[in-house]
Amino acid sequence: MHFTKQQLNELAPRFRTQLINSLSGFKSANLIGTQDKLGNTNLAIVSSVFHLGAHPPLVGMIMRPHSVPRHTFENIIETGVYTINQVNSEIYSQAHQTSARYDRDESEFDATGLKTEYLNDFDAPFVLQSRLKYAVKLVEHQHLAINGTELVIGEIIDLHVDGAAVQEDGFIDLMSIQTVAVSGLDSYHTTQALSRLPYAKK
Amino acid sequence: MHFTKQQLNELAPRFRTQLINSLSGFKSANLIGTQDKLGNTNLAIVSSVFHLGAHPPLVGMIMRPHSVPRHTFENIIETGVYTINQVNSEIYSQAHQTSARYDRDESEFDATGLKTEYLNDFDAPFVLQSRLKYAVKLVEHQHLAINGTELVIGEIIDLHVDGAAVQEDGFIDLMSIQTVAVSGLDSYHTTQALSRLPYAKK
Repeated sequence: MHFTKQQLNELAPRFRTQLINSLSGFKSANLIGTQDKLGNTNLAIVSSVFHLGAHPPLVGMIMRPHSVPRHTFENIIETGVYTINQVNSEIYSQAHQTSARYDRDESEFDATGLKTEYLNDFDAPFVLQSRLKYAVKLVEHQHLAINGTELVIGEIIDLHVDGAAVQEDGFIDLMSIQTVAVSGLDSYHTTQALSRLPYAKK
Repeated sequence: MHFTKQQLNELAPRFRTQLINSLSGFKSANLIGTQDKLGNTNLAIVSSVFHLGAHPPLVGMIMRPHSVPRHTFENIIETGVYTINQVNSEIYSQAHQTSARYDRDESEFDATGLKTEYLNDFDAPFVLQSRLKYAVKLVEHQHLAINGTELVIGEIIDLHVDGAAVQEDGFIDLMSIQTVAVSGLDSYHTTQALSRLPYAKK
């Protein structure tokens, strides 16, 4: 099946949203935990978290300030900190529910039954039920003028993970902690290992 | 298990690279097809392709210009076009092999047995064996000073996909075309569906 540029432009908006969201492949599923200066908490599922570098340890994500994660973005700017919590198969329905349009004074924690957890004096809430989560300090953010999204870059400053999942070489077995992957807007997946491949040489 | 910022900083570099690369969750596996103005082809596996928007259809990726995808990045700047080809379980070993340090005049297509395919007069090579692939026109790129990576943003202008995978609402069933996910630096995974969830409402 072939879609030309013109055909893509003429698709019904909802069909196009589903189609284009499928093109990047499997995506990560993460919950972003924040609070404002008064301590009002917020939680938002984001599928655009990506690895940016290990030295220093940096993580990026794309946020749409005009959609649901607006409160999350505002809290990040206000406090400079947030948590990233991997979604596992035990909590993926609750994680998805955080994408509903709750008001600013409603916490997605209360609304979904996901529980806040405060670790190591960090000023943003973690998700108790997540088995791999880390504290992030905002480093920079950039407005992408082309479509009004925000690129948010942070430094990983504190990591909490089920110890049994960390292998001898530092690789974390995400399957063992039931981390899920996302495809499209709304499809959740567990994974099966094909294999780890050695460092490629000519 | 808890790693503080100081402990993360003191990890052996290879251990840290594996560990930090595992934190973002499951990642997409895509092959970036390019050629220079003389038609010399290049192919590089990239795990940082992410959805940026559907209206207009935009896709982003992070490239490390000082590592293997350097030739790819240079070709993109030189020609303004590239292809993104989803990796499936039939070709993941060959896809991984493209990360070896081939010289500029060696094509990863020839070295790995992946085959070039030219579609709809587009001036960059597709991967014949990929079952979901699209033509991308460079829109902008930004140097991220914090760690020397490049953010590359492109517009999706031509889509080729196995028709049976496209569902009525536009969602593409990536499992049916055996698209794989990556974790860490080198672990490849097939997926199993948990479910698609409805649009979340309060």
